[in-house]
Amino acid sequence: MSNIIRFLACTLLVSGSARAAGSEGSAELLFSLFWVVLAATLCGALAGRLGIPAVVGQVGAGLLIGPGLLNLVQPGEVLRSLAELGAVFLLFMVGLETRFRDLLAVGKEALAVALLGIALPLGLGLAFGLWQNQGLLTALFLGTALVATSVGITAKVLQELGLLDARFAQIILGAAIIDDILGLTLLAVVGGLGAGEDVGPGKVALILGLSLGFVALVLTLGLPLIRRFESRLRGLSLARMFNVAVVVGLGVAALSTVAGLAPIIGAFLAGMVLAEVKDELEFESKVHALEAFLAPIFFVVVGLQVDLSVLGSAAVLVSGGVLTLLAVAGKLLGGVLGARSLGPGAWLVGVGMVPRGEVGLIVASLGLAAGIITGPVYAQVLLMVLLTTVLAPLVLRVLARRLPAA
Amino acid sequence: MSNIIRFLACTLLVSGSARAAGSEGSAELLFSLFWVVLAATLCGALAGRLGIPAVVGQVGAGLLIGPGLLNLVQPGEVLRSLAELGAVFLLFMVGLETRFRDLLAVGKEALAVALLGIALPLGLGLAFGLWQNQGLLTALFLGTALVATSVGITAKVLQELGLLDARFAQIILGAAIIDDILGLTLLAVVGGLGAGEDVGPGKVALILGLSLGFVALVLTLGLPLIRRFESRLRGLSLARMFNVAVVVGLGVAALSTVAGLAPIIGAFLAGMVLAEVKDELEFESKVHALEAFLAPIFFVVVGLQVDLSVLGSAAVLVSGGVLTLLAVAGKLLGGVLGARSLGPGAWLVGVGMVPRGEVGLIVASLGLAAGIITGPVYAQVLLMVLLTTVLAPLVLRVLARRLPAA
Repeated sequence: MSNIIRFLACTLLVSGSARAAGSEGSAELLFSLFWVVLAATLCGALAGRLGIPAVVGQVGAGLLIGPGLLNLVQPGEVLRSLAELGAVFLLFMVGLETRFRDLLAVGKEALAVALLGIALPLGLGLAFGLWQNQGLLTALFLGTALVATSVGITAKVLQELGLLDARFAQIILGAAIIDDILGLTLLAVVGGLGAGEDVGPGKVALILGLSLGFVALVLTLGLPLIRRFESRLRGLSLARMFNVAVVVGLGVAALSTVAGLAPIIGAFLAGMVLAEVKDELEFESKVHALEAFLAPIFFVVVGLQVDLSVLGSAAVLVSGGVLTLLAVAGKLLGGVLGARSLGPGAWLVGVGMVPRGEVGLIVASLGLAAGIITGPVYAQVLLMVLLTTVLAPLVLRVLARRLPAA
Repeated sequence: MSNIIRFLACTLLVSGSARAAGSEGSAELLFSLFWVVLAATLCGALAGRLGIPAVVGQVGAGLLIGPGLLNLVQPGEVLRSLAELGAVFLLFMVGLETRFRDLLAVGKEALAVALLGIALPLGLGLAFGLWQNQGLLTALFLGTALVATSVGITAKVLQELGLLDARFAQIILGAAIIDDILGLTLLAVVGGLGAGEDVGPGKVALILGLSLGFVALVLTLGLPLIRRFESRLRGLSLARMFNVAVVVGLGVAALSTVAGLAPIIGAFLAGMVLAEVKDELEFESKVHALEAFLAPIFFVVVGLQVDLSVLGSAAVLVSGGVLTLLAVAGKLLGGVLGARSLGPGAWLVGVGMVPRGEVGLIVASLGLAAGIITGPVYAQVLLMVLLTTVLAPLVLRVLARRLPAA
């Protein structure tokens, strides 16, 4: 007891921040957020001057202030949650700028891009793992880490360039949804195999059915519902409509996790449903302000999570470099082949599918925690994530300016 | 290890939300946030229909969905952090609507209100504790819990009524800053005594000097600095200026915790400094959107933290009721006497100082954790917090509409 009191007294007298609710944690969070937003602002502005996408600057900002370099910020639970909210609001915003019928119009291409963009990286990663003399399960995990596109990175770059409504951008968005559904199913299967479970076709069908069913449900129920209540929504004040939009976005994002999907997919779907009435209702600018605060936190935290110190050895750099080449080749080929009807614009799709961002990190962390992959393999994935996340936006921007956006 | 894998597999296969970064936590947070924002929106709208302040509806929303009633949401670390960010952005916003010279003009009244509003509740709480046969230290803690005004509650009500720039509102804001400085010093002294430490006048002077020095520093350095960089700031885009504003707000809020102040005080000061250039730069609407999302979370979380189940016994209701009367009487008298130059408007100041909100909760929780106060005393404080937080805004609104705002 006296220790508690002494601890309390120390907190009170030394830091003096007793009233700041959970004192130390609160001060720490505010400082972390301060550094994150400051670094994002400065590096984002610098990126603008250099003519490169702001997201690249922001991921770089995370590397800079993270544990590997300046060590100003350690990504804790609250910061990670804010980052995830950032991704959710980013995709919600992207959904608000997307029309379902435009997405449907590129459905065939999106499906082809998604399927090829899963099969090729999975196969290449698996082969590379086996060639490295990893076990089958480890090699499968490595392949799985190559599968999932981080659509947030690409979407932000396209938004910055004002190209979100281009046909190739719609293909990327559509492919990202399918990619998420199939990629998650794959992760469930590989994870199940890792746990020595009996992952039969029944279970796979269940997981797949749940995800697909959820997407279908949101769209088939959401679109008529929003039209049905359109006149009522039109009667709401701007402030109230903003609240309703946030409630819908958060609600669908939360529900999508129950269906086995990433919350960003739910947020995107919710945004797309609300886009049907958006033109009549001016709440988008308020959602945009939220996104403008939270999304940079997401990009910086992606950088924060890449621990540069594990990339030190030459072996990691070489094999991580090869892994990166395979990761790029798989998605690029998938995009170019799947969207070949676009002509040269198919290259934009391919490059847009390349960034792995946070998703690759999560797969790698899960594999590491479960002992399925080792430290060096984890480091390879980290390097692959870093390079694809930073390089793809650079190439995408250059390419988008040169190619006619089909 | 096999347990980890089994756990992993369960997470993957059952909830399927593996890609949702820290999966379960992330889904839980999204659901919590969904309920919080939904309840805040519905109860806020209901409050509007009933003609009562939205904050009352939002605190009520927290009670409703909290552990005591529907048990839909448990306030975890992330939700508390978001709530605190809400308070920070709320006071930042209030600062943006405050001119330093207006605050300075009511300095004498604000000081009088703050000093009386600390001395009277402290004395009454102390006397009540001793009368209840509590030890001196417990009685002191009880008095300390009565001291601190929750300025966020009152500020929001005044903002809703469009009265933030009234003279009485400026007195409340000024008094709240002084209240915070002195209240924190008091808490440090009482906490130190509780730890059996030697709290001499030197230490008290140090704590007090640090807080006062910080406020003086921010104002004397901040105001000339902002004018010096005014033309540069004017050259920034809206998006960039929003970033700069957020960086400044978070930075000063974080630093204020180092000086022993609550972060909301730093945020308020930062807002007031930025207010000097606000008219030329339209970033306020973006800050407002952030505040519109986060501040309701703060009010709901205040309600969430009041565990209604501990208020069950008649003894707690009676002694908590008496404590509430003393809490109201102390601040009311302090306001009426301190701001008597306002005439009848002084009553507005008195009522505006009444809500204790989150601050009383923090003092009570610290006391409970350190074993200085017992469960029943904690429950009394909880009831006092609840009643002052809910009733003061109701009375303030009615009074503000009848009295000429001096």
